[in-house]
Amino acid sequence: MLKRTKYCGQVSEEDIGKELILCGWVHRIRNHGGVIFIDLRDREGIMQVVVEERTSPKAYEIADSLSSEYVIAVKGSVRRRPPGTENPKLKTGYYELLAQEIEVLNTSEPLPFPVDEETPVSEELKLRYRYIDLRRESMKESILFRHKAYQIIREVFIKHGFVEIETPFLTKSTPEGARDFLVPSRLHPGKFYALPQSPQLFKQILMVAGFDRYFQIVKCLRDEDLRADRQPEFTQIDFEMSFVEEEDVISFSEELICKLFRELLGIELKRPFDRMSYKDVLERYGTDKPDRRFGIELVDLSNIFKNTEFKVFKDALQSGGSVKAINFKNSHLSRKEIDELTKFVQTLGARGLAWIKVEDGKLNSPITKFLSDEEIKNLLEKTSANEGDTIFFSADKQDMAYKILGSLRLHIAKKYQLLRDNTFDLLWVVDFPLMEWDEEEGRFVSLHHPFTSPKEEDLPLLEEALKSQDLEEKKQLLKRVRARAYDLVINGYEVGGGSIRIHRREVQELVFKLLGISEVEAEEKFGFLLRALRYGAPPHGGLAFGLDRLIALMRGLDSIRDVIAFPKTQKGICPLTGAPDYVSPKQLKDVHIKLE
Amino acid sequence: MLKRTKYCGQVSEEDIGKELILCGWVHRIRNHGGVIFIDLRDREGIMQVVVEERTSPKAYEIADSLSSEYVIAVKGSVRRRPPGTENPKLKTGYYELLAQEIEVLNTSEPLPFPVDEETPVSEELKLRYRYIDLRRESMKESILFRHKAYQIIREVFIKHGFVEIETPFLTKSTPEGARDFLVPSRLHPGKFYALPQSPQLFKQILMVAGFDRYFQIVKCLRDEDLRADRQPEFTQIDFEMSFVEEEDVISFSEELICKLFRELLGIELKRPFDRMSYKDVLERYGTDKPDRRFGIELVDLSNIFKNTEFKVFKDALQSGGSVKAINFKNSHLSRKEIDELTKFVQTLGARGLAWIKVEDGKLNSPITKFLSDEEIKNLLEKTSANEGDTIFFSADKQDMAYKILGSLRLHIAKKYQLLRDNTFDLLWVVDFPLMEWDEEEGRFVSLHHPFTSPKEEDLPLLEEALKSQDLEEKKQLLKRVRARAYDLVINGYEVGGGSIRIHRREVQELVFKLLGISEVEAEEKFGFLLRALRYGAPPHGGLAFGLDRLIALMRGLDSIRDVIAFPKTQKGICPLTGAPDYVSPKQLKDVHIKLE
Repeated sequence: MLKRTKYCGQVSEEDIGKELILCGWVHRIRNHGGVIFIDLRDREGIMQVVVEERTSPKAYEIADSLSSEYVIAVKGSVRRRPPGTENPKLKTGYYELLAQEIEVLNTSEPLPFPVDEETPVSEELKLRYRYIDLRRESMKESILFRHKAYQIIREVFIKHGFVEIETPFLTKSTPEGARDFLVPSRLHPGKFYALPQSPQLFKQILMVAGFDRYFQIVKCLRDEDLRADRQPEFTQIDFEMSFVEEEDVISFSEELICKLFRELLGIELKRPFDRMSYKDVLERYGTDKPDRRFGIELVDLSNIFKNTEFKVFKDALQSGGSVKAINFKNSHLSRKEIDELTKFVQTLGARGLAWIKVEDGKLNSPITKFLSDEEIKNLLEKTSANEGDTIFFSADKQDMAYKILGSLRLHIAKKYQLLRDNTFDLLWVVDFPLMEWDEEEGRFVSLHHPFTSPKEEDLPLLEEALKSQDLEEKKQLLKRVRARAYDLVINGYEVGGGSIRIHRREVQELVFKLLGISEVEAEEKFGFLLRALRYGAPPHGGLAFGLDRLIALMRGLDSIRDVIAFPKTQKGICPLTGAPDYVSPKQLKDVHIKLE
Repeated sequence: MLKRTKYCGQVSEEDIGKELILCGWVHRIRNHGGVIFIDLRDREGIMQVVVEERTSPKAYEIADSLSSEYVIAVKGSVRRRPPGTENPKLKTGYYELLAQEIEVLNTSEPLPFPVDEETPVSEELKLRYRYIDLRRESMKESILFRHKAYQIIREVFIKHGFVEIETPFLTKSTPEGARDFLVPSRLHPGKFYALPQSPQLFKQILMVAGFDRYFQIVKCLRDEDLRADRQPEFTQIDFEMSFVEEEDVISFSEELICKLFRELLGIELKRPFDRMSYKDVLERYGTDKPDRRFGIELVDLSNIFKNTEFKVFKDALQSGGSVKAINFKNSHLSRKEIDELTKFVQTLGARGLAWIKVEDGKLNSPITKFLSDEEIKNLLEKTSANEGDTIFFSADKQDMAYKILGSLRLHIAKKYQLLRDNTFDLLWVVDFPLMEWDEEEGRFVSLHHPFTSPKEEDLPLLEEALKSQDLEEKKQLLKRVRARAYDLVINGYEVGGGSIRIHRREVQELVFKLLGISEVEAEEKFGFLLRALRYGAPPHGGLAFGLDRLIALMRGLDSIRDVIAFPKTQKGICPLTGAPDYVSPKQLKDVHIKLE
């Protein structure tokens, strides 16, 4: 076998006149009668190979038998391309390899789809032939980009004295709220391992063990419904630090993110990143992960309409809801466009969408007739309405108003292309409430997870809430208890989240009690953590970034599937291998289960 | 909270006179009346804190309330210890911190076992309180050693242009021979994912995709019976290279191993490592993973006894077996010791253990009376027998003789302490047969895996074997077909194995046929690999190291559990979390299974 001496993509000026052996795939091949041109492709790029019948009849004969994607080794000498034939788009476009010898290492059948960026190919087919899809320049670049990201990430961790430690995959149900993947045990009939939703408890245990700073780039698994762009397995940049407060974790995180942007994109991010409280982002953007690259902020008009006669607004306000609006400025929307937006909000559960258009100095609206002049004047002022603007209203329970207007502003931004590519909005969201009342479950639930520490100064509120016998009072008290938690939001995606954890057993028990987790349940589920807190647990906190989303955002890609080598479809299928699949009765019997 | 300014273990000469804040655990505390000494411990080491009642009454009062493993922060100034009180065993043993202020960050109940190396603690208890066990110096050092190993490993891969790529955890049964862990699918009733036994097929797919060089430090999972020192989940250093031959993989591997030994142990290994053929190691050591740090090699005596009248030897030889021996030189074994060794081989399935002792110039043996003088003379010569030696025989089928004498020599080495610590025997075993006949299954099986390439020059033998209708002839032909495989053996442990893979579809199909894998089965199990081989698969090969074992060997530890942060017991239990455990009926119902 001819042994490669250089990558195709790395041939350069210094190789002129030298003999090289290149290996790779036949990307394109053209026979000009007596001379065959091969674009030979490897991981590093493309190099033009010239095979002349006159000077190398044997190589020519072989070249003449080649087709696309054949794998070959070529021995030849590098020369400058004749003037006028250079290809300045290629790094190697000024050189060519004059072939002396060609070895066919493997053949290829015609591909199910070509290796290019243009041909539209269904997701299923792409994933089924992932090895061909991965040959595309953009896919390859994403995987190489991700590879570089791993190394940069570890470099930052190492610099800051973090220790890389592996946590187990066969473990016990973790309480992340999502469904666990289960693994039946063969040695322990009727028992199951759970795959980790995150190494949360293990990293806290490592702090109790004294490792001080832990990190891991680790796969996590959640059996969630795969709405939107989720994957059942995903990668986390996971870390934890001892003897720290919020600022330490946030500051380290910013250094990590800045280094990634600097080294991979050449972008210098401004530090510190912006911070906003949970309350503020909800009020202004209707969501706790706002995309602030465009305006159209929410405005609360409840005060303006507190005495309104307009039934829709009045009803909403009287049942404890609110009236909010957004102003799509200078939008000059047609009636048809407004109808489309109405349909959109209806898919979210809104009954309708009230609007006012400012057109030719007049107001065009189905609702102005129900409003007083004073109300109209005030709302126009509050929303800074001007010629060409359209104001949309939501009169609903507060949560619903946030959901509808928050989604509507994003929908508008996408539909009307208000987002510029290659701009990044980084935001820390802080001051989350520790718990919120879950109407469905009829109990308080953690906004982050039950190990998140409340602010020290809010501890008395927790204790008061525990003593209170009145649910409404409890709710009011707990609303005021803030968590020591922080989420990093980039362009409207939550790419990371973490907190200072509870390190004192009595606080952890207090929180469990308020969450309605009984002592028995707490012992059964998190007994080992509670036990660990008894034996000298240091103050600690950490964070986890979603690596897939972070890379996708940095690469300007919508789907995390484009930055994962072997992703699954929306239905959790791997079209390449055919997983999941049926197994033999013996395999089931071995692990003591039957099909339902 | 007092914010740490330095690690305890890093206080040095330059800190003298400076004010520092240290955080950590109360390792030891002694009250000398008016002065309290605290050994404060963190990840980096121990620092002595002195609290004087006279100068810091408040700190003294707090110090007086402390117990072992309390977590504290101490503010104070560094000074030199008074002459005569230095502790040269500690890096920080020449300094002490005179405390001005102490903050108790957490208390600790009395520990279930002390943080030291001496106290004997049961495995179960250690793992149940792993966070305390991990505080022990030796455990901590193992985890930090492993952390450093990760970084060195990646450095070598990066230097050689490898790309780090993650492969999936939820996948399809891989054909590694061991049992898969199964994960029932919720979205696809009756179907299962399998957890990866290795990323074998994915790394080959990545080569077909053109990534040229892939690596990953990755968890693998096998549901094997946990005999000896196995773990259901273990870590592999996994890599694959395109356009390479055996020498490339071996040479890269040696560079990796040498760098680890150099940087972590300061040991310069001699390159190239030794190589022996599969045939030779079996003949000389009775195993394909020999420990060559001591002699006692196997000697074949079949020729000497080919006409023997000794029934035991005669029967063995006539039924196609062999007579082999080892000589435990200068051992002066007592009868009782020989009996113990006999019992040992009986646990392996040997009927008995024939022996000859050379004692006071005479032969002491229960079998010499059945042997001719000629036979005795020849066997003594062949085994180089001398005064004090004991020769042990095995007359059995060849495999059994290898097993018994191979195990016996290891047993002897351990029992009689023939192994020196901190010596490393590194050996490549090569020239494995591609397949061997499996008596139980009644078919040929791969010695490595079915994707291992046969040597090019042995291909005609494979084709001949396929055509042959005679099983015996088939066996003889296939015995001669060598695999392009290589195992790295260190001190008797197989720490790595790999091969050049089959990259041509017709060869892969030929191998499947000889392995008795039908086309339907091949399509179903490895269809995606066969398909990939159609579309331009480059020549490729790789290797995987068992990281846990490698680290344990380098640290001189017997058990891989001592180099894993959260290992499982022999029965696959995690005493820390209690996994595996029962799950709710709803969880089972969600994934469409019932208990058997």
